[in-house]
Amino acid sequence: MDLEEIRNEVKKAVEKARETCPLVPSITNTVTINLVANAQLASGGSAAMIYLPDEGEGIGAVCNAFYINMGTLLPVYAETLPRTARALQAHHKPWVLDPVGIGLGGLRTVLLKEFRETPPTIVRGNASEIIGLANLWGLDAGIKKEGGRGVDSVDTVDSAIPAAKSLASFIHGAVAVSGENDIVTDGNRVIRSFGGSILFTKVTGSGCSLGGVTAVYAAVSEPLIGALTAVNMYNAAGKRAAEKAKGPGTFEKYFLDEMYTISAEDVAGNPMEMVEE
Amino acid sequence: MDLEEIRNEVKKAVEKARETCPLVPSITNTVTINLVANAQLASGGSAAMIYLPDEGEGIGAVCNAFYINMGTLLPVYAETLPRTARALQAHHKPWVLDPVGIGLGGLRTVLLKEFRETPPTIVRGNASEIIGLANLWGLDAGIKKEGGRGVDSVDTVDSAIPAAKSLASFIHGAVAVSGENDIVTDGNRVIRSFGGSILFTKVTGSGCSLGGVTAVYAAVSEPLIGALTAVNMYNAAGKRAAEKAKGPGTFEKYFLDEMYTISAEDVAGNPMEMVEE
Amino acid sequence: MDLEEIRNEVKKAVEKARETCPLVPSITNTVTINLVANAQLASGGSAAMIYLPDEGEGIGAVCNAFYINMGTLLPVYAETLPRTARALQAHHKPWVLDPVGIGLGGLRTVLLKEFRETPPTIVRGNASEIIGLANLWGLDAGIKKEGGRGVDSVDTVDSAIPAAKSLASFIHGAVAVSGENDIVTDGNRVIRSFGGSILFTKVTGSGCSLGGVTAVYAAVSEPLIGALTAVNMYNAAGKRAAEKAKGPGTFEKYFLDEMYTISAEDVAGNPMEMVEE
Repeated sequence: MDLEEIRNEVKKAVEKARETCPLVPSITNTVTINLVANAQLASGGSAAMIYLPDEGEGIGAVCNAFYINMGTLLPVYAETLPRTARALQAHHKPWVLDPVGIGLGGLRTVLLKEFRETPPTIVRGNASEIIGLANLWGLDAGIKKEGGRGVDSVDTVDSAIPAAKSLASFIHGAVAVSGENDIVTDGNRVIRSFGGSILFTKVTGSGCSLGGVTAVYAAVSEPLIGALTAVNMYNAAGKRAAEKAKGPGTFEKYFLDEMYTISAEDVAGNPMEMVEE
Repeated sequence: MDLEEIRNEVKKAVEKARETCPLVPSITNTVTINLVANAQLASGGSAAMIYLPDEGEGIGAVCNAFYINMGTLLPVYAETLPRTARALQAHHKPWVLDPVGIGLGGLRTVLLKEFRETPPTIVRGNASEIIGLANLWGLDAGIKKEGGRGVDSVDTVDSAIPAAKSLASFIHGAVAVSGENDIVTDGNRVIRSFGGSILFTKVTGSGCSLGGVTAVYAAVSEPLIGALTAVNMYNAAGKRAAEKAKGPGTFEKYFLDEMYTISAEDVAGNPMEMVEE
Repeated sequence: MDLEEIRNEVKKAVEKARETCPLVPSITNTVTINLVANAQLASGGSAAMIYLPDEGEGIGAVCNAFYINMGTLLPVYAETLPRTARALQAHHKPWVLDPVGIGLGGLRTVLLKEFRETPPTIVRGNASEIIGLANLWGLDAGIKKEGGRGVDSVDTVDSAIPAAKSLASFIHGAVAVSGENDIVTDGNRVIRSFGGSILFTKVTGSGCSLGGVTAVYAAVSEPLIGALTAVNMYNAAGKRAAEKAKGPGTFEKYFLDEMYTISAEDVAGNPMEMVEE
């Protein structure tokens, strides 16, 4: 696929999510759970958040795609996350992993290691998280690092390209790295998407909700396109929202408005370049 | 009561909530807990959210009304919900049940079954949830169904009228069914309220927060009027907010503004019709 | 320090937070956790919320300051809060305690009592909470009371000045009392800050997020200045937001915008008076 064909697939993914309203449940952190759900609704999906093991198995078996975000772990996650991941694997459901906070605490490390056996379809994170996960899974990341600073990245997007490619190849899916611009890769092709706004860094859950929306598009397209559609949506709608906003408070609300109203053509037409093909 | 008398009672409920600031605690899901609290504050109530069993008992004994939403169950709810419901019953406190997600998972089914013995004053839900609860409690629902799709309804509001009437009669209270328009019943009278906006379906927690606001009005009026006042508030304030909003992000914020500023007369004057009396 | 010197220190605190982006993790309630994080980001800090004991210890050892809010306790807090507080003490990290809901439930009382041995650097609360905590710790509060009404105060700010001074002296730090105006004290000096808006009482988490922002400034200044800078920020930015807002929904968003854009001079220049020196 060249960039023109890719743009066409992105356009179809935006349209298909709006037409089919895929059911995309999440296990996600309590900080940004509301924004994740609202962003999923604005993109056309149906959201449903859960904590309990049998609920993860039950809705994992019937969903169109799933989102797991490691943000604020609770004790019950020790059982819920592995059982949900196994159900998703058994039922061949696409799912997105956001390894937020990798390196912090014992449970997060244990659970992230276990996902190596029940791998996600797409991994989304900042540069430090992607590098950290590749290292945790013993893949070639090009750098030895375990995580970031709290939930923030201390690495550049480009420095995470080798880790992203290794991860994407290993999971036979796609990896998206968020930062000053965004990289999406399926292990071979590497595409860069431009746009967005510095205000995303001042709204908690920009990344988490991007993960949730990635899962919406993963329900209606192949991994690379799903990841790229979400990234393009954020960059295109975020750029428009920033033109109206006076700060992070209004930005978040205008962003949801823009995501709901932007045309599929404008998402597909967001500035991109092929870095490697 | 004819519609004119009902409008007068609705007006009084809006005014009384604003004047008396009833204490209306909630046990509610983590997705929309913030919007529930903000909607309760905007309507004039005082919010307080809890998770632990002895806190539910303690504040249940001294509150003016209570709200229980089954959205995101945690393990501790297995103890907290029954103990809180028993405290509410012992202290004759009105409370509102929102059976979100009915049909998903084992704990939700167990807890919802137990509430049959400590029944709420008002049940609020979408059509599928109301039908599902009536069936779970062995009441005549007119249809055999166990729930919806995730948190979404797959049934029309009108198809849930028999279930709503059965439930309202059983609890000697009122039932509100949310959807393209809204139905409120005490088992005999059935009143339909119009207005609102399609944007409510694109804001997570529209239904949950309506449940929380219903509890605010249940603290200051009889069940049918409490349920109807909340529904009218959402329809009247929601319609106004939609006229200003550019999408779901700004809609949510304008809606809270409108709920805070709308006159009691305008809530009482919202378009309604008597379907059965 | 006279008021002019204090204003200069406040100005420096605002600037330093924006320049250094201190890492300020929180253990806080699920109702307002999103606003706490967004307010911390808007003030220049980096937020990271956690629930598990080893995560509290781990990030407590490397953070720049920490925020503990007692709002919605979960069972795991019985272990997480004491272990985190001990880690903060061992590593000499400044931290802010918000004793929300004091008087409700057994666990909250136990945990708040234990904090007497691992005291915070700053306590922030409404008048009833400050009076309640001073009494719980056996300090001279001038009044015997255990708490408020749910999460609301039933006491005036001025009635809490003796309790605030006793607490501040005991912890060798500072105490901030929020209300119709705000008092900050280090046990000797008492400073009153004016401004804000009645709309703060209609937005859930105004107080919680003030606590989180207080921790951001506690990372870059001494306790009295940290507490006062946060209070001044809320009063100055809140006053501006209220001039634009049509209600509590838009107020919250405009407030975050103003906090992000207001100059350090305007925060330092917010109306204040020295009540006792």
